[in-house]
Amino acid sequence: MIGDPQPLKESQTMRAGPSQEDIRRHNLGALLRHVHLGGPTSRAELTSKMGLNRSTIMALTSDLTAAGLVREELPRETGRAGRPSLVVRPESARVYVFAFDVGPDRLAVARVGLGGVILDQRETARRRSAFELDELTGALAGFARQMRRKTRDDTVCVGAAAAVSGGVRKADGVVTFGPNLKADEVPFGEELGRKLGLGLPVSVGNDANLAALAEHSRGVGVAVRDLIYLHGDVGIGGGIIAGGHLLGGHDGYGGEIGHMVVNPGGRVCGCGSRGCLEAEVGERALLESAGRFGAGQQGRDAVRAVVEAADRGDIVAQEALSRVGDWLGLGVANLVNIFNPEMVIFGGMLREVYLGSAAQVRTQLTLHAMAPQRERLRLRTSALGDAATLVGAAELAFAHVLADPLEVLARANA
Amino acid sequence: MIGDPQPLKESQTMRAGPSQEDIRRHNLGALLRHVHLGGPTSRAELTSKMGLNRSTIMALTSDLTAAGLVREELPRETGRAGRPSLVVRPESARVYVFAFDVGPDRLAVARVGLGGVILDQRETARRRSAFELDELTGALAGFARQMRRKTRDDTVCVGAAAAVSGGVRKADGVVTFGPNLKADEVPFGEELGRKLGLGLPVSVGNDANLAALAEHSRGVGVAVRDLIYLHGDVGIGGGIIAGGHLLGGHDGYGGEIGHMVVNPGGRVCGCGSRGCLEAEVGERALLESAGRFGAGQQGRDAVRAVVEAADRGDIVAQEALSRVGDWLGLGVANLVNIFNPEMVIFGGMLREVYLGSAAQVRTQLTLHAMAPQRERLRLRTSALGDAATLVGAAELAFAHVLADPLEVLARANA
Repeated sequence: MIGDPQPLKESQTMRAGPSQEDIRRHNLGALLRHVHLGGPTSRAELTSKMGLNRSTIMALTSDLTAAGLVREELPRETGRAGRPSLVVRPESARVYVFAFDVGPDRLAVARVGLGGVILDQRETARRRSAFELDELTGALAGFARQMRRKTRDDTVCVGAAAAVSGGVRKADGVVTFGPNLKADEVPFGEELGRKLGLGLPVSVGNDANLAALAEHSRGVGVAVRDLIYLHGDVGIGGGIIAGGHLLGGHDGYGGEIGHMVVNPGGRVCGCGSRGCLEAEVGERALLESAGRFGAGQQGRDAVRAVVEAADRGDIVAQEALSRVGDWLGLGVANLVNIFNPEMVIFGGMLREVYLGSAAQVRTQLTLHAMAPQRERLRLRTSALGDAATLVGAAELAFAHVLADPLEVLARANA
Repeated sequence: MIGDPQPLKESQTMRAGPSQEDIRRHNLGALLRHVHLGGPTSRAELTSKMGLNRSTIMALTSDLTAAGLVREELPRETGRAGRPSLVVRPESARVYVFAFDVGPDRLAVARVGLGGVILDQRETARRRSAFELDELTGALAGFARQMRRKTRDDTVCVGAAAAVSGGVRKADGVVTFGPNLKADEVPFGEELGRKLGLGLPVSVGNDANLAALAEHSRGVGVAVRDLIYLHGDVGIGGGIIAGGHLLGGHDGYGGEIGHMVVNPGGRVCGCGSRGCLEAEVGERALLESAGRFGAGQQGRDAVRAVVEAADRGDIVAQEALSRVGDWLGLGVANLVNIFNPEMVIFGGMLREVYLGSAAQVRTQLTLHAMAPQRERLRLRTSALGDAATLVGAAELAFAHVLADPLEVLARANA
């Protein structure tokens, strides 16, 4: 089968087998990931799901418990007779990360506990204006400090990550393009890390990529190994999970679906090109087509108003949605041919647009996507909604904890 | 960094650490892959490249030697004093696979030795007509039998795989779409395996996907983890390597780049849509634009004739190439925005088209691809040329040998 390219995977060509210590670290991470993503799990379930024997599970759980990452409890109730299997729970109240979201219309910060529990959250509206690094990082760090003052003494912050709309260079996490970016190179994570003063690096990811990871790990795309997440705000972004991996690209800019040209010679796009998906289906395209572009009319509410007007029979709104839905459908058809995904997820303002133009999208798919690729395709809207980017940022912040649980905690407690 | 999505990789969530036996198998495969892809390698180099100690390398080599997969030899000459390190060579003359290529204009079969050495090859022209399963598999199996009769008694065939133009369903290797396919479901591998009568399954892959793997493992894309291979024949196909893995998609149909719509409402495509990349830049589009479409004018020679005419100053040919180059460039720009690849490779007739229209392709990239994505992009032509599909099929056939060297050889010798 062509589906499994393992023999040509470069990393495997070069890597030797893991040592016993590597295996222990791998298994500690795997167990922690189980309870982080799946919630409280009995030892018996872990034994069967992880394919390890009971004594290994016990030893791993004991290590993670000693490190303060999980605790074991008797289950509330069991339907069965006999001694119940202990349940392993993540220490959500004690071990947490900071997740930041720099959206076009809001700034949000959440304190997220191991297991993905949002423990505390702050957000504020943001003007759509220039990207003032000092002002933005200052506001975000201020929120984090407020939340931190309210935590108990035994809590420990193990990571921090931010979602930004724009391109994030893989090599160093620097933001290199995005709406209203004043400089060519914005060291957002570095500056936010400095202002936080926690001695922790702040990872940075593209918002649509992180939302895709969030839907893949905790949303509508759980267990879906090939999915495309399309995110609409002012711009159109994307996050692609291919074979279970986020498609990062050579420099980290993979998934810039919004700048696929669907209509050559079409509407001018902010990127300098014409007829990009973003230019044809973004917020401005919809509002202009609906005759509603202008002062004070922007953001999710303005988009929702168009969809509602169309529902009520407003012909101009209907035609605008229909036009935008046609281009959206053509864009999705192209992606379906290229990627053969199992699922396409519409998030941000594209959730409303899709719900208001599903017929157009499906028609374009029938016209332009190849039958074998579309037969088993599922179209869905985001399950996490506007929380997707924050949830994704939290997962990014937890990534190194799950990769090496003990090392991270040892450092945090030092 | 967002580039590494490991924490959300499903397979890792579920999988426990490897056993000692798994590690041995992994290392045997890794060592064999080293010499299969890299050629004869000294024990000292293997020790340093694989990060294992000398005694482990010696034990692994000894196992592979006993199995007849590699042999150790004194190097021809060394520039240094002291006892030279033994060189480990793949047993290319003894261990081989059959690779088949069902192209639109030819059928080819190669007997390929471990290490990628083409030991013997047959090919024949093919009429562009219906896909006669019985006739095609009969001809291919006949070639294989001829070659097999010429082999020494101690040789062993360890695998077989075929490249076909068309869609190959991941679940069962059945060909489900393709040019001139008469049935909806063609069990090509099963039928070829039956006719070969070697007791071996025949893996089947899409030709452009296999050519992409070939360029990635032995061609211009070695060590390039993110590349797009564009293949032109009658149709336009693609193979995408993302993060070192072939993009297979949910059902195995990933990479159908030829059916991305670049020109809505444009030329009618064989798939039923309009303005697909294939419709705008395929062989027929070029020959028609150049006023050369008709009886007897088809295939690589006809394409080459257009490029040569343009070189000599033929204005009609120049305009045809320019038009096709514009659409090709727009398609590549879209792919660059979506994937952020390190390299785009032009193969098949697109090699000639690209060489004849590189200026147009580059102009479209500048107009439509985002600067950070195109800054480090390399555009290349196929290094393996028309051998790419056969080389890729051979790699597919060797895949399971490299995954578990001893098991495969034990079965082959039984």
